[in-house]
Amino acid sequence: MSILTPFKNLMQRFQPKMMAVGINHNAELSEKDAFISRQIPKPKPAEGELLVKISASSVNPIDIKTRVNYHLDGIFKVLGLDAVGEVEALGKNVDDFVVGDQVFYTGTQPQIGTNAQYQVIKAALVAHAPRELSASQAAAMPLTSITAYDILHQAFGLTVERDSVQDKTLLIINGAGGVGSILIQLAKYIGLTVIATAGNKESRAWEEGLGADHVLDYHEDLAGQLSKLGYPKVDYIANLQDTDAYWDLMVNTIKPFGRIAGIVTNTKPVDIGALKEIGAQFTWVFILARGNFNHNLQEQGDILTKIATLLDEGELKSTATKFYQGLSVESLKQATKIVEGHHTLGKVVIDYQEDEQ
Amino acid sequence: MSILTPFKNLMQRFQPKMMAVGINHNAELSEKDAFISRQIPKPKPAEGELLVKISASSVNPIDIKTRVNYHLDGIFKVLGLDAVGEVEALGKNVDDFVVGDQVFYTGTQPQIGTNAQYQVIKAALVAHAPRELSASQAAAMPLTSITAYDILHQAFGLTVERDSVQDKTLLIINGAGGVGSILIQLAKYIGLTVIATAGNKESRAWEEGLGADHVLDYHEDLAGQLSKLGYPKVDYIANLQDTDAYWDLMVNTIKPFGRIAGIVTNTKPVDIGALKEIGAQFTWVFILARGNFNHNLQEQGDILTKIATLLDEGELKSTATKFYQGLSVESLKQATKIVEGHHTLGKVVIDYQEDEQ
Repeated sequence: MSILTPFKNLMQRFQPKMMAVGINHNAELSEKDAFISRQIPKPKPAEGELLVKISASSVNPIDIKTRVNYHLDGIFKVLGLDAVGEVEALGKNVDDFVVGDQVFYTGTQPQIGTNAQYQVIKAALVAHAPRELSASQAAAMPLTSITAYDILHQAFGLTVERDSVQDKTLLIINGAGGVGSILIQLAKYIGLTVIATAGNKESRAWEEGLGADHVLDYHEDLAGQLSKLGYPKVDYIANLQDTDAYWDLMVNTIKPFGRIAGIVTNTKPVDIGALKEIGAQFTWVFILARGNFNHNLQEQGDILTKIATLLDEGELKSTATKFYQGLSVESLKQATKIVEGHHTLGKVVIDYQEDEQ
Repeated sequence: MSILTPFKNLMQRFQPKMMAVGINHNAELSEKDAFISRQIPKPKPAEGELLVKISASSVNPIDIKTRVNYHLDGIFKVLGLDAVGEVEALGKNVDDFVVGDQVFYTGTQPQIGTNAQYQVIKAALVAHAPRELSASQAAAMPLTSITAYDILHQAFGLTVERDSVQDKTLLIINGAGGVGSILIQLAKYIGLTVIATAGNKESRAWEEGLGADHVLDYHEDLAGQLSKLGYPKVDYIANLQDTDAYWDLMVNTIKPFGRIAGIVTNTKPVDIGALKEIGAQFTWVFILARGNFNHNLQEQGDILTKIATLLDEGELKSTATKFYQGLSVESLKQATKIVEGHHTLGKVVIDYQEDEQ
């Protein structure tokens, strides 16, 4: 025991705390302690970081994947990637923000995620939140918007500017989820003809409302439906559902020199060779790799700045469809249950400011 | 029989002919009639095409693949993709060339390839030949140079300008063949650190002579050799040898956000999923898809114009190592035999102008 230990203990007693909701094992959602709440130290921003008081977050499928695969039994982990909030403090060398700014972001998978009252986050990942949207509406957007942007720009090589594309068709496999709901809008904005798949009437109506030119029923033969529509082959495919199940369809449906983007890891090896002869490519989009490997972080801040502008201008609309109030074990469990049901339209949001709505 | 048939027959008797060497079945090279020579009609350039009197060609591995897989028994097919020659006639709407120009090109897989006295070729695929090189030296370059350029530019996203890259490492799996021999040079030109594999002393010396910074023995543990060199992970990998055999090595050796290019079709499905979490990508490079699908042909002419300049300036040197004289069954058989042996250094060329050398 160091001579300083008594002082350290004393200091810890007065260290500011915050409330967080998390997990400590890979629980089934039905378990009583699937989520638990804790008082943990309030973090301090280091150089290049912001301390953000979080006002809303949203649940993404990756949060569920992380919980189900969690193996550090007994070690508290806070999930959550998306956040909207207010800048409460700045680390050194942060130029783009001041205390009091409303911001939004996504992008790292730290031990303490956004299901907490506060988070420190690298400023490069952050953008000013859209002014015209509520915190809840904005919280639906960061992870899915950056993913949709990366699909169009990085994987397809397209410019995300209004009507910058002519006479090109995009097939979105699963257009109704979080990424699909913003990808339909962004793709229409840049001028693509958008064909999206849906599994039921509600999803079909949702996708048409977001601007999809055609909606296909994924329970039926997709190739046949595409041919009937007059699009037996398409220029771009975004597979937001299942890389294995749709591989053959994608290979048979993509045009020569077409581009396919996938966001769901395959479970079996795939035959990439069929793409080679036609000059086509398959590209992964996984935006968390930026944060996890500290690579081009500013790109995410820049993309979100653009997304915020398009939201404020009404070119895009929030994909939030369900709202839960207050950061609590119960609200997180309910929100997660919806996303785990796999038939969510758009995004499920948790508003931390219980009193406001 | 039409009333015009006698006139057609008469016209055919006076139609100009040319000599071509080709195949009419998927022969083993040891068969006596593996290659045959024929007098066939001399082609005429259509709109946007050039008629080229070919003075030299080179053998590429894809010529062998085409012969081995040929299934149109009894139908004469002329192999050969690379050509250097003189423009003898122009179709309509050709602006960039005049009769008498020395040109070089590659890029389509027609029934009548470049192992003939003449060929018609779309002008967009063609560039003026390097002035400082002999026809034989230049004939080694088109297909492999465009492939190397596409690897660096399209697959890796790099700019092909002198010293445009800093502190990045490229692993070339098989640096001694046609593509490897020019890729080593182009990669060094743009500033990459180049590590190439070789199977014997002769290949090692050849690769070092072309500028490779390090040469690894592919009979031994490559991962161990890379670690020993201080490059346990690399930024880029060009697999010019065997996509299946090196897949695991590539996945384990590529850095986060690295890029892998392949030019050899896989024979089994591959696990692409391992690349996703680290933000890395695998991209096919198959330049003949442009010609086969009539896609961005001018890109190939433009790349070759740049390659010709770099050759004339001495920044690149011809990769031709073996020369055969005269377009004949015998010369084509000999040249093909060398390439089929799989241990060719650089390229094997056939000079059609027998009298000159």
